[in-house]
Amino acid sequence: MSKSFIKTLREDPADAEVESHKLLVRAGYIRRTAPGVYTWLPLGLRVLRKIEAVIREEMDKAGAQELLFSALQPREPYEKTGRWDEYGPNLFRLQDRRENDYLLAPTHEEMFTLATKDMCSSYKDLPLVIYQFQTKFRDEARPRAGLLRTREFVMKDAYSFDVNTESLAASYQLMRDTYERAFTRLGLPYVICRAVAGAMGGSHSEEFLMPCAIGEDSYVVSDGGYAANVEAVTTPDLGDVDFSSIGDPVDIDSPDAKSIERLVEVVNAAYPRADRLWEAADMLKNVVVVATYPDGERELIVIGIPGDREADLKRIEAQLAPAEVEMATAEDLAAHPELVAGYIGPRHIGPNSPKRTYDDNGVAHGSVRYFVDPHIRRGSAWITGADRPEWHTANIVFGRDFEVDGTIEAVEVRDGDPAPDGSGPLRMERGIEIGHIFQLGTKYADALGLTVLDENGKTRVVTMGSYGIGVSRLVAALAELNHDERGLAWPALIAPADVHIIATGKDEQIFHTAQSIAEELDSQGISVIYDDRPRMSAGVKFTDYELIGVPRAIVVGRGLADGQVELRDRRAGENISVPVDEIVSRVVEDVRSVR
Amino acid sequence: MSKSFIKTLREDPADAEVESHKLLVRAGYIRRTAPGVYTWLPLGLRVLRKIEAVIREEMDKAGAQELLFSALQPREPYEKTGRWDEYGPNLFRLQDRRENDYLLAPTHEEMFTLATKDMCSSYKDLPLVIYQFQTKFRDEARPRAGLLRTREFVMKDAYSFDVNTESLAASYQLMRDTYERAFTRLGLPYVICRAVAGAMGGSHSEEFLMPCAIGEDSYVVSDGGYAANVEAVTTPDLGDVDFSSIGDPVDIDSPDAKSIERLVEVVNAAYPRADRLWEAADMLKNVVVVATYPDGERELIVIGIPGDREADLKRIEAQLAPAEVEMATAEDLAAHPELVAGYIGPRHIGPNSPKRTYDDNGVAHGSVRYFVDPHIRRGSAWITGADRPEWHTANIVFGRDFEVDGTIEAVEVRDGDPAPDGSGPLRMERGIEIGHIFQLGTKYADALGLTVLDENGKTRVVTMGSYGIGVSRLVAALAELNHDERGLAWPALIAPADVHIIATGKDEQIFHTAQSIAEELDSQGISVIYDDRPRMSAGVKFTDYELIGVPRAIVVGRGLADGQVELRDRRAGENISVPVDEIVSRVVEDVRSVR
Repeated sequence: MSKSFIKTLREDPADAEVESHKLLVRAGYIRRTAPGVYTWLPLGLRVLRKIEAVIREEMDKAGAQELLFSALQPREPYEKTGRWDEYGPNLFRLQDRRENDYLLAPTHEEMFTLATKDMCSSYKDLPLVIYQFQTKFRDEARPRAGLLRTREFVMKDAYSFDVNTESLAASYQLMRDTYERAFTRLGLPYVICRAVAGAMGGSHSEEFLMPCAIGEDSYVVSDGGYAANVEAVTTPDLGDVDFSSIGDPVDIDSPDAKSIERLVEVVNAAYPRADRLWEAADMLKNVVVVATYPDGERELIVIGIPGDREADLKRIEAQLAPAEVEMATAEDLAAHPELVAGYIGPRHIGPNSPKRTYDDNGVAHGSVRYFVDPHIRRGSAWITGADRPEWHTANIVFGRDFEVDGTIEAVEVRDGDPAPDGSGPLRMERGIEIGHIFQLGTKYADALGLTVLDENGKTRVVTMGSYGIGVSRLVAALAELNHDERGLAWPALIAPADVHIIATGKDEQIFHTAQSIAEELDSQGISVIYDDRPRMSAGVKFTDYELIGVPRAIVVGRGLADGQVELRDRRAGENISVPVDEIVSRVVEDVRSVR
Repeated sequence: MSKSFIKTLREDPADAEVESHKLLVRAGYIRRTAPGVYTWLPLGLRVLRKIEAVIREEMDKAGAQELLFSALQPREPYEKTGRWDEYGPNLFRLQDRRENDYLLAPTHEEMFTLATKDMCSSYKDLPLVIYQFQTKFRDEARPRAGLLRTREFVMKDAYSFDVNTESLAASYQLMRDTYERAFTRLGLPYVICRAVAGAMGGSHSEEFLMPCAIGEDSYVVSDGGYAANVEAVTTPDLGDVDFSSIGDPVDIDSPDAKSIERLVEVVNAAYPRADRLWEAADMLKNVVVVATYPDGERELIVIGIPGDREADLKRIEAQLAPAEVEMATAEDLAAHPELVAGYIGPRHIGPNSPKRTYDDNGVAHGSVRYFVDPHIRRGSAWITGADRPEWHTANIVFGRDFEVDGTIEAVEVRDGDPAPDGSGPLRMERGIEIGHIFQLGTKYADALGLTVLDENGKTRVVTMGSYGIGVSRLVAALAELNHDERGLAWPALIAPADVHIIATGKDEQIFHTAQSIAEELDSQGISVIYDDRPRMSAGVKFTDYELIGVPRAIVVGRGLADGQVELRDRRAGENISVPVDEIVSRVVEDVRSVR
């Protein structure tokens, strides 16, 4: 420690909100270089490499083959797959001295596809899984939580290549099993959630989420075993509603009723119903969002949702990918006089607008598009805006009084909502995404011409799977999982050292003995942090040991006079006395038993 | 091999000129992604990682500590050291979504300095050596020779930090010894050459060059042990010449004498000397170059050299760093009427120009600067341009008839030139730069405020050393060194596998036995390439084995009927028969003996 590049801090860094971030900085594992960009100090780098090693072992056992693509990538292949534009502002773009366009790869689908196209020509070359540990670059709008969301990070990305969907399903299952084994070895609890593929394209997709209150991913689980990212939750189809008893639309004078709460009061007063009070769930709220497409085009879209629910922009965005979605501004609305803020109804927009036309491709023109959340069932009756200030209309029936451009999952999922597979009510949880697996299908193979000849000599487009682990993020996830109020407390497999040796006091013999123990352990392949700092109090040394979080410590101090040293267990918090001449063999045995 | 991502090519790649490039592509080690940007296929990545491991072991043995900086770096620290500009077009610059400036680090001096500033405050924290294996980015004007000069490459860069120059010298020596050990273990022959520090700044600097005819670095050696990069060779000072016998300048009508060869003829005819013929070495040739500074400013400079030598732009450039130097164009000359192409003399430029003035800082203005190569000795007399078309002047004496702005090493070093240390005549060689070590001094510590308190509590600026190895380039250097006409032939330490197993023929028993041998070796930690391809001729398999270059092969074929397999040594070219039940133990022993 006296000459090591390990320095601890007493204060939490000012910009840190989550424990992993605070502790990794304070214990000298990482330092911030720029927003979302970090330096790996020696301790952090060791943990990162140990995590990599576990994942690599499991990938290799599964027969996957490691290679390494460049970070710098020419524009052309990303242009062919459309991702040069689709990635929008998340992509770091640059030019070389000849003004050729390059990017820093955020993922390497194109390269994996082209490499396989170069190397494989026959079905006999498949199935194939290739992977890399690579530094990725994404210009995140909001880097956060230390290593949890950064702009430069280490990812293990793997791709499978198969001749047909059955074989792809098998490769997918192989990688899914491999991820389960790797995460289990690393001591990472996980839930496998259904997910949406997003900008990657493809069909079937699952996320490995580590349950964690500070995670930025919301997911739901049911007791019956359903689990999904909220973006992927679907609302069970409850069928049409019989509206034969619903009367004609009735306009209701509803001044000052822009909020749902106020509207409920107004209609209960002005248009009371006999059987019960009107509720927020009887109101059809029409929210206006703006979808911004990768080419910069902005589209205003109106979405109808029940009045007792809030819109969930992330869920909407997932379905409008690759567009980015935000709430419309007053300025956006001003450009559309048919949208009367606070009184927007469904009867003059979307397919219901007289301006609506369709071109030869069936694409709608002439009026903003109108979607409803699936909670708006066909045949259901609503109180909604009358499209003029201070008026609402009751008895507006979906399918009788208005039509829609489609259905879109648009509202926040709530505790108690039914699981789509009938497995019971959903519970909301938060987690950290630690892995993501996709069945990509032929999107990239089509775009880049990856085909092989099959048994009959026919050309077949290769079908692909994609499998990612955020390796540097795992350092943070594991730190979230393995700490207490005194500091980090790593499991042996990924700890930056096997043992932390502390010499206390000023007695030369103590330092001499501690040094010998350190050297003996080192010579037996045990990695050691030796706190040899002279004139440093035992208290400071213990504090540093507990902050750094190596699984065990050997304390050489006053007990040495009686031939004893102390062996501490960081996680169990136990201390025992061990004869000094047994300590090396005891620790060697301990360490080997958990490797 | 039937499912591996190893595919060999029969044809050399069209863009490859050197053997390492041809073979690494043909044998399936690398693929080109963009100019100077490569993909590491599985075989190449294994060799790269093995080389890294050897270097890492030696660095760790020397007490150096590994960390890892980001590739993406903010502009600010590079601005402080001046390198944001100095690096010129070699730097990849980019902006993030908030239009902040970033760069892809070409080297990490700033980060190493700032990290040490963050972590160290006392002389007790020093000496310190920290290092990383990092992917570097440099926008080379002319990427070439496969992995020898690329734009994205792996570098091991280390920095030492010391409180004084004696301690720096010791750290420098430690790293120099470490490099010697690492290169020796890797089987890399090297010459340690004096070098110039270039854009890095600093004083003392040496390069490790691997002698190699296709290397792009020229260096010189003497029998007495002198070795230097040509940029660093200095001309021994031969002192002043007595010019008391030299008469007054004489103009010589010399039409059509723009070349030195023609000029010699003309003056021997028009102005013969009694004792001997005039020679090219009697002519003072004034070459005009343009230095382009990082800020884009272009300066015209005239340099006088002996007529029997050529100017060496790389040597000139090394002394004008960080400027880039090229020959002046006709257009450049047109802007300076005092420079009469083909007839430029020293008497109207530099300090000899009536327009020359000096400002308060002693900086020259009003006339192009004029330098001479040290072969132009003070007091020597020359025939040179008369600054008007078709006329030259004889008896022009340096120090009598003209002065200069300084001396600059400007001419090509030649075989037979004297070593500056008197150790004998120089011999020109070519090599590949495999390592470079510098004593940087306080350049970066000054710019970024890296100080520590010394024993007396006084603030001291830290002095630094810099130590780099081009790791990905070593793959090419080692391939240049370890190949024959049939392919690569790696030394055991860095080969992508320990043994290549070849099953020949169609007999199922042969494939079954080969498979068992592969599995047994694998289970004992021996890495294996198993060529299990059915219906592939033995010839093709042998060709691939020899191209890929694993040190030994086990051939399982017809001999199996007699209980024999063949053990081949790729480098020695020897084949021996080994009983099949002894082959595993024999190979395990072989492999372990060289680890």
